[in-house]
Amino acid sequence: MARFSVTYWLGTASEADARARAEEIALEQTVEIPRDIVPSGFVEDEILGRIEAITPNADTRGGYLADISYSDDDIGDDFPQLLNIVFGNSSIRRDTRVETMRLSEGIQRICPGPRFGIDGLRKRAGVEQGPLLMAAIKPVGLSTRQLADLAHRFALGGMDFVKDDHGLANQPTAPFLDRLKACTDAVGDANARTGFSTAYVPNITGPADRIFERAFLAQESGAGGVMLAPSLVGFDVARALSADPEFTLPIVSHPTFGGAHVITPTTGFSHKFFFGILQRLMGVDAVVYPNFGGRFSFSRDECRSIVDGCTMDLGGLKPILPAPGGGMTFERLPEMRAAYGDTVMYLIGGALLREQSDLVGACSRLREAVRTRH
Amino acid sequence: MARFSVTYWLGTASEADARARAEEIALEQTVEIPRDIVPSGFVEDEILGRIEAITPNADTRGGYLADISYSDDDIGDDFPQLLNIVFGNSSIRRDTRVETMRLSEGIQRICPGPRFGIDGLRKRAGVEQGPLLMAAIKPVGLSTRQLADLAHRFALGGMDFVKDDHGLANQPTAPFLDRLKACTDAVGDANARTGFSTAYVPNITGPADRIFERAFLAQESGAGGVMLAPSLVGFDVARALSADPEFTLPIVSHPTFGGAHVITPTTGFSHKFFFGILQRLMGVDAVVYPNFGGRFSFSRDECRSIVDGCTMDLGGLKPILPAPGGGMTFERLPEMRAAYGDTVMYLIGGALLREQSDLVGACSRLREAVRTRH
Repeated sequence: MARFSVTYWLGTASEADARARAEEIALEQTVEIPRDIVPSGFVEDEILGRIEAITPNADTRGGYLADISYSDDDIGDDFPQLLNIVFGNSSIRRDTRVETMRLSEGIQRICPGPRFGIDGLRKRAGVEQGPLLMAAIKPVGLSTRQLADLAHRFALGGMDFVKDDHGLANQPTAPFLDRLKACTDAVGDANARTGFSTAYVPNITGPADRIFERAFLAQESGAGGVMLAPSLVGFDVARALSADPEFTLPIVSHPTFGGAHVITPTTGFSHKFFFGILQRLMGVDAVVYPNFGGRFSFSRDECRSIVDGCTMDLGGLKPILPAPGGGMTFERLPEMRAAYGDTVMYLIGGALLREQSDLVGACSRLREAVRTRH
Repeated sequence: MARFSVTYWLGTASEADARARAEEIALEQTVEIPRDIVPSGFVEDEILGRIEAITPNADTRGGYLADISYSDDDIGDDFPQLLNIVFGNSSIRRDTRVETMRLSEGIQRICPGPRFGIDGLRKRAGVEQGPLLMAAIKPVGLSTRQLADLAHRFALGGMDFVKDDHGLANQPTAPFLDRLKACTDAVGDANARTGFSTAYVPNITGPADRIFERAFLAQESGAGGVMLAPSLVGFDVARALSADPEFTLPIVSHPTFGGAHVITPTTGFSHKFFFGILQRLMGVDAVVYPNFGGRFSFSRDECRSIVDGCTMDLGGLKPILPAPGGGMTFERLPEMRAAYGDTVMYLIGGALLREQSDLVGACSRLREAVRTRH
């Protein structure tokens, strides 16, 4: 049976310690019983994780990198079990972090990957070159009418995507279905006037037994995508939608609630894995994350590594758009361009909402500034 | 509108810094726009988080504790949005940790809480006093027949609950439906012989569009509970099941994939919140976590705080059973008894599987040793 592999960073002092820790992970992630009682034959030969390589780690954390391979037979046919093999109970170990991953055939059957990816999103937006732009309607507490009015003005200003704030759920001030219809209409009306192809992206993050319904309601209402927060609703919702031939909208992923998975460099997942590789496995088309230089602590290098995870070769899965949010101003454009080039979707929030008196004009100026090539 | 509150630990050097950070959290978790453009009236008065208290933190981390209250209007009617308010984007901030929480009426409407809780599980198991016992069938790679045979012997030995290993999903060696039927029958057959009420608890962690189906298949097949991993499948699945009058089985929660949420003391959630308060909000009846003294790094105090989160007064939600796994041996019984008393369900894995030659006898001896009062 085909095998895939995961590269773990291990904070050990010696190669021998790293090997011992890797052997613990190979057990923990698969059979979860002591080594001496692992049944011989199929379980020992196929199911048990296999250490493929131990190498010194080059970055400032020191330690070692361990490549461990697992069999497609460990997974069966479901994605949560793939993630459980990648970093199940070992997520509870300190000084252990998932760095990167190599796919197998079995994974590619479970995870067809993003339906749109970068090229599909560009085609949908009618923007062949340069960064894409996404605005957010907010805050929670505005009425449906106020939110739809914001969406309308963002669309008139030529934003490519207008998404719900991730806090907009089904509050009485702007219930999901009302908001969906009002904002879809508002953006459609603006598109009819401008000729732009702005897409409204409602937040479908919600109850587990209603989230697929919300996704399809969005599609039927003419929304241009859906947004969800995998760390809240689980990592299989996007995967199931992207694998469903009946579902035809792009998927945007939001990082809320998942910070602990990445912000401690010796724990959880590398930025590249969590905001890149994992998103493509889930079939996400654009991934929101906190930009460097904003109010969160991601470094420029970490953001660059996210771009790498979004665009590197990954078993035929389409590359996707990194969507850094926060910290985007006219003054920072040269810096952003140097970091991201053209392959990016900028998420602009508060900076635009400041310009309420001429929101359409502010959007237009931003669009021109971002798209002007130097 | 009623308000609930969250207590955050903040790793700041001064009370003024703590207050400034708390103000950032109050914004970030609700309106997510700069303070000076928060609309006056309802949004500013109700939706915006409100700092209720800042106090010095007493434990070795130093820093401060900030109580921030939020309105039920922030949430609407769904649980993921409650969690998004509790710790959405602020989860991406370092030196910020959720410590505890006070509920409101709105939350109690969304979260009816555990259906069984401690008393319900005791009644189901027919064990009025003393710790309960749970064994796990494993490893992945065994056939359905081999797993069912293990379940049978655990039941003959009088384990109260026999659960799937959390890695058992829908692999070809033991597909979910085959395993469910074989193990339910095996345990039922043992109960008929012994008079015990052992419950088989299949792992329903699986694809988002099939997990509710798996839960109800378990119920229809006569299983005695279901197990799921909220960090993988999302935090609303258990809540939806516990709130569904058609669903009548106890729910066991497994910690896999979620380690990063707790293991860094300055990030994520306190053990008390994550393995206690959150589980009760989700409607979980018993929560598995790594025991102290095992192969993970939880301290005795952290485990004691989990017991506190499982049993403290919490807006009328039933107390639930902590289910520490790992490190349980005959030698450690006095130590375990001192830490947990009677209100506990011990999860025994590898230690029992070592006793293949007389598994039934080993279970019986363990049961007697655990239930003997000193």
